[in-house]
Amino acid sequence: MYKQLSEKLAAYYEEMVNIRRHLHQYPELSFKEVKTPEYIADYHKQLGHDVRENVGENGVTAVLKGNSPGPTVALRADFDALPIQDAKDVPYKSQVPGVMHACGHDAHTALLLVLAKALNEMRGELQGNVVFIHQYAEELAPGGAKPMIEDGCLDGVDVIYGTHLWATTPLGTIEYNEGPLMAAADRFKIKVQGKGGHGAQPHFTKDAVLIGSQIVQSLQNIVSRRVDPLDAAVISIGAFEAKNAFNVIADTATMDGTVRTFSEEVQEQIQKDMSEVIHGVTASFGAEADFKYFKGYPAVINHKNEAEFLRETASETAGIEKVVHAKPQMGGEDFSYYLQNVRGAFFFTGAKNPEWETAYPHHHPHFDIDERSMLHGANVLGNLVLKTFENN
Amino acid sequence: MYKQLSEKLAAYYEEMVNIRRHLHQYPELSFKEVKTPEYIADYHKQLGHDVRENVGENGVTAVLKGNSPGPTVALRADFDALPIQDAKDVPYKSQVPGVMHACGHDAHTALLLVLAKALNEMRGELQGNVVFIHQYAEELAPGGAKPMIEDGCLDGVDVIYGTHLWATTPLGTIEYNEGPLMAAADRFKIKVQGKGGHGAQPHFTKDAVLIGSQIVQSLQNIVSRRVDPLDAAVISIGAFEAKNAFNVIADTATMDGTVRTFSEEVQEQIQKDMSEVIHGVTASFGAEADFKYFKGYPAVINHKNEAEFLRETASETAGIEKVVHAKPQMGGEDFSYYLQNVRGAFFFTGAKNPEWETAYPHHHPHFDIDERSMLHGANVLGNLVLKTFENN
Amino acid sequence: MYKQLSEKLAAYYEEMVNIRRHLHQYPELSFKEVKTPEYIADYHKQLGHDVRENVGENGVTAVLKGNSPGPTVALRADFDALPIQDAKDVPYKSQVPGVMHACGHDAHTALLLVLAKALNEMRGELQGNVVFIHQYAEELAPGGAKPMIEDGCLDGVDVIYGTHLWATTPLGTIEYNEGPLMAAADRFKIKVQGKGGHGAQPHFTKDAVLIGSQIVQSLQNIVSRRVDPLDAAVISIGAFEAKNAFNVIADTATMDGTVRTFSEEVQEQIQKDMSEVIHGVTASFGAEADFKYFKGYPAVINHKNEAEFLRETASETAGIEKVVHAKPQMGGEDFSYYLQNVRGAFFFTGAKNPEWETAYPHHHPHFDIDERSMLHGANVLGNLVLKTFENN
Amino acid sequence: MYKQLSEKLAAYYEEMVNIRRHLHQYPELSFKEVKTPEYIADYHKQLGHDVRENVGENGVTAVLKGNSPGPTVALRADFDALPIQDAKDVPYKSQVPGVMHACGHDAHTALLLVLAKALNEMRGELQGNVVFIHQYAEELAPGGAKPMIEDGCLDGVDVIYGTHLWATTPLGTIEYNEGPLMAAADRFKIKVQGKGGHGAQPHFTKDAVLIGSQIVQSLQNIVSRRVDPLDAAVISIGAFEAKNAFNVIADTATMDGTVRTFSEEVQEQIQKDMSEVIHGVTASFGAEADFKYFKGYPAVINHKNEAEFLRETASETAGIEKVVHAKPQMGGEDFSYYLQNVRGAFFFTGAKNPEWETAYPHHHPHFDIDERSMLHGANVLGNLVLKTFENN
Repeated sequence: MYKQLSEKLAAYYEEMVNIRRHLHQYPELSFKEVKTPEYIADYHKQLGHDVRENVGENGVTAVLKGNSPGPTVALRADFDALPIQDAKDVPYKSQVPGVMHACGHDAHTALLLVLAKALNEMRGELQGNVVFIHQYAEELAPGGAKPMIEDGCLDGVDVIYGTHLWATTPLGTIEYNEGPLMAAADRFKIKVQGKGGHGAQPHFTKDAVLIGSQIVQSLQNIVSRRVDPLDAAVISIGAFEAKNAFNVIADTATMDGTVRTFSEEVQEQIQKDMSEVIHGVTASFGAEADFKYFKGYPAVINHKNEAEFLRETASETAGIEKVVHAKPQMGGEDFSYYLQNVRGAFFFTGAKNPEWETAYPHHHPHFDIDERSMLHGANVLGNLVLKTFENN
Repeated sequence: MYKQLSEKLAAYYEEMVNIRRHLHQYPELSFKEVKTPEYIADYHKQLGHDVRENVGENGVTAVLKGNSPGPTVALRADFDALPIQDAKDVPYKSQVPGVMHACGHDAHTALLLVLAKALNEMRGELQGNVVFIHQYAEELAPGGAKPMIEDGCLDGVDVIYGTHLWATTPLGTIEYNEGPLMAAADRFKIKVQGKGGHGAQPHFTKDAVLIGSQIVQSLQNIVSRRVDPLDAAVISIGAFEAKNAFNVIADTATMDGTVRTFSEEVQEQIQKDMSEVIHGVTASFGAEADFKYFKGYPAVINHKNEAEFLRETASETAGIEKVVHAKPQMGGEDFSYYLQNVRGAFFFTGAKNPEWETAYPHHHPHFDIDERSMLHGANVLGNLVLKTFENN
Repeated sequence: MYKQLSEKLAAYYEEMVNIRRHLHQYPELSFKEVKTPEYIADYHKQLGHDVRENVGENGVTAVLKGNSPGPTVALRADFDALPIQDAKDVPYKSQVPGVMHACGHDAHTALLLVLAKALNEMRGELQGNVVFIHQYAEELAPGGAKPMIEDGCLDGVDVIYGTHLWATTPLGTIEYNEGPLMAAADRFKIKVQGKGGHGAQPHFTKDAVLIGSQIVQSLQNIVSRRVDPLDAAVISIGAFEAKNAFNVIADTATMDGTVRTFSEEVQEQIQKDMSEVIHGVTASFGAEADFKYFKGYPAVINHKNEAEFLRETASETAGIEKVVHAKPQMGGEDFSYYLQNVRGAFFFTGAKNPEWETAYPHHHPHFDIDERSMLHGANVLGNLVLKTFENN
Repeated sequence: MYKQLSEKLAAYYEEMVNIRRHLHQYPELSFKEVKTPEYIADYHKQLGHDVRENVGENGVTAVLKGNSPGPTVALRADFDALPIQDAKDVPYKSQVPGVMHACGHDAHTALLLVLAKALNEMRGELQGNVVFIHQYAEELAPGGAKPMIEDGCLDGVDVIYGTHLWATTPLGTIEYNEGPLMAAADRFKIKVQGKGGHGAQPHFTKDAVLIGSQIVQSLQNIVSRRVDPLDAAVISIGAFEAKNAFNVIADTATMDGTVRTFSEEVQEQIQKDMSEVIHGVTASFGAEADFKYFKGYPAVINHKNEAEFLRETASETAGIEKVVHAKPQMGGEDFSYYLQNVRGAFFFTGAKNPEWETAYPHHHPHFDIDERSMLHGANVLGNLVLKTFENN
């Protein structure tokens, strides 16, 4: 059966490319998606699927019922774009100033739509159901996954799979992992409230630049000493601002940063440790600080059995030597919420053209993919559906 | 003779006030003085003094020749204003938007002009000459003193005196000091060149925020450990800027600050030590830094004998209990350049109205003085002239 | 065949205990082993094995040839003790003052000897050979493994296995891992050369306590910022010494510490980074530092296929639910050298009596094991031999 | 009259030297003085002075009544020695192993005794009284001055003077100062209580070495930012100790240090700031610290008029160009207590032989003085007495 599916997908490759290029020209920002979900819904309606629109807010789900009862497998693709000006010189470049599909969500959508079409044509032989989850707003926390789940998109779903095309991974490679695949990505803000004054009279002040500097230093001790060395964690302070005349001692200093972790336990611990460090250091100056911590997406943790099943399935599809262990990535994804609710796994599909010397990274104004990666992703996802039905 | 001078000054007090209030309404910024020097030059011309205009750039000097030969005493007053919006509600408030005599230079000028008039009337008895130095651009380094000296304003001068009215010192008090009276005020800029990157991947970066923070910390060691504890010194970093997204590791960070010292030796040492600290710390990260140090005005160092002579003279003028030892101030003044060229002394004349609970500090939008302080300053400066001639 | 082996081992359990208790009473320090290798060699000689003594220095190897040709499997047990005073109150407590088998090497030896006896009895059915490697000096770097390998102990060996009984892991549990199991454990010494002096005159000194303190702080940045967050690493400074009168500024300060890593790349990078940090910080004070880095044992990295084979084999032996994934340990083991030369795997065998509330950790004066763990270790090692032969 | 005194002192110079050398050979430690006070008391008794022994504990006072009533002037000399082994090779070297007059107190005593003899011979002309205060235990806080004052040694005294011979100041020079002459010298101890553990497992510990290091760093901010730049202050940490195996994380770390200040206000502020810094930093690690602060002698603050009177008097005695302004010293002296109770001044008398290239500093095993300095000190002190009487 997989052979049949694979042939269909190959046959529809041109359509896949067309859809992707259309979406690429008309990108829409997170939480502001209007035309894209309409386009998606229309496509599924023409296939006769059960379509729900405005799931969560701008999401779309479509259900393909197989011929006989069986498990329900969900496949997810996200469809939002980024506030980046497209700098590529290609016929399909973005028509919307300042907005661009710079992360490949257009291709995720295209591959899932065409896979839906192919599976639909095989529905007579399917022993189970497929739910196509088209998610809005992956790029911007709090994201679209959570409200879509709350709105029932996983109801009745037994297992979920998804992929992210990856522009710096060679075409043909499938990267999977048991357990953590992508980190939890949190954000924090620190505001030091010192006491400003004249640069020549430090003794009348509480120097917010010095206090802030010591906080930056002391926060290093959390990763170096307080987190289990076997747990990965990052605390980065991206912005430090205390804008004053050169001869004025700062009243306040602000710092913005991010925390990356792979387990809720470490995430909680770091938040608590940061608070202790920040308030201890400011107390040592008799000053005060305000510390705000905003949780982003949790870590994407693949379920063990489904990751193993993915490895086997992808090995059949892509060739065993193409399926490699992924080093977990420190960046975030709200696919994590699906995996907190049902079993499943997420994987990366290589999208780097073998002739490119280096690939532009995701979120870069010149970002692009080798479009053949869509076929690879669709094959693996499709085969996961077929084999889940078979194994039942 | 001092009694005679003192009576004249008292008689002309109203004129002094009028001049000051006129200048107060038409303040001119440093290096942009046009009307003020004209006004000053006219006043001296009417007295029949030898007047030189455009000394340095916008300065004015006037020479009063006494009846018989003797020492030449210079008296200096500055006349520039500040880019501050006058917030006082008085009839004589500034008529120029955003410009204000917020440091009392208007009053310095008024008292020196009227003192010139009084001394001029006594010229038949004067055994020596007086050079009135009206200086532009004291507020803005590199200042007007240096170019005026280079343009010859001190030629033939034996000794120089000057005063600064001080709004937070009680009216009637004269503050003097042997040796350091006001600090050298320098400026520096540090730019850390790290290597930016994604907040989740610190190992590919050289985090400029962290490097900058460590520099701020390490610079503390200079004052705490490297400077002789008996030498006063301040290193303050007013601005620390690394403006990035919260999840981006900083490529660069910049710091602006000031150094205050009372001796050239300590000033030189600190500049050298700062360079060592900054480059050592950045080297410890494999990064680089650019360090620029801009010398401001040197310290105002009163000459010992002239300071002692000032103390005696002022004690006769103001009453011995009114002449107090000044704690040196960390702020800068380019009177220092005159004292590097000829002997002399500088002092503070109390200008705080006894009925004010607190006085607005210099450079404050509500800054004002008790105008009677002008009379006190003029009396001490005048008596210094008379006694210098007598002692010869 | 495994059933037969297992029954033999069970029958000889008492002998195993006796051997272990005998060795426990007569422990010998690393590199000073004399009686223990004699005892081991005698045991194997009585079994008719090919015995080599003084391998490396104090090591013993014994070869059991099977009936028919096949793979050669090595099994390793270490036999040195520690300079710790035995504080247990048991009949078999150490008879040697200040020396104690506080890490279980006595039990490793006992289980391997009895396993050798059992396998020897089955030699008619064995399709391959077994090399029993009895290693001296595991506790003290540079250790006995390296010289034994250089002396040929692995010649002809195809695969090697070994276990460490673990007193804090529940009896019956087998802990294995693919890849890193135990860290590389290195040592370093830093000596800061400042310039001492009187506590009241810091400006004549280069304060070694302050310099050392800043080094301690700056070294934190290596783990927090320079090492890939996905790589485990530890830098710990155990000792900081600058012993002076309270009013004397330190001339020198010394620091001793350890580095733990799981890959040679990270190990090399940390050594380089430490040098950069230490010399940068000292340069920022115009001082100097001496940095010495001593490499200890490399990380124990299990080979992938052998680890998987171990998991399967142990699951048959111990029950699948008893075979768990080990979190890698930061402590060192020179089993790593064997794995750098031939394929193989190392594992932990739980030795915590289920009735103990807490177990004394290894190297503790009250350390002891549940002796039944020896049987578990012998069963898994024995079955690894049998299945290796079968699979051939 | 001064001429007469001066001639007498010159005549008795040999006696002065003999007394000094005798005392030099039989030094006695602080609080353990027995023979020295007996020797002193006997000398005064032979002169017929009113002698009190065991003042405080081991002190001696002697009163010389002048012929007619007038002011009472006290002169103070200390007489204790140090626990240092005399390393000089001179006939008068210490006969007591491990004890040495390495600070010149022997010479202070000799010059005061001979001055007493000379003044005694002039008593018919003296219009006032002299109290000779021979103080024990200056070298060891809490010192002898305080208990002697409590025991009445200053009763009836109007003014007090004293000198310290100074081996690194050229012979002939008199160093005086208005206000602060010597600093308050305090001591402190910090003990960090972290939580020890294995060097490979920092996350189970609170690393006392790291906490201590951060305290050392943060304490720098007090002098650099919290103390008025015009106030001299030093915080030095002499000892930092955390003695552990290289692979053990420290449970505790201890630091000993000293604080030097010239005003009680700054002294109090620093103690408070240190506590804030130490407890803030330890709190930032969730750890604890014990901070003990021991006040030593207060600063020696000369009274303004007496310092001026000293300057004039010494100028007559030693020549005006020999009387120089002393840079205040950061070391302590309990002469401070006398000046807290009565008016007076303290000064340094140069004792460096002009032929010495460098002089051994005080407390050095090779310390010695140019004995002619005793004559200079006696002349100034004697003239202070005579002029005080005259001026009355």
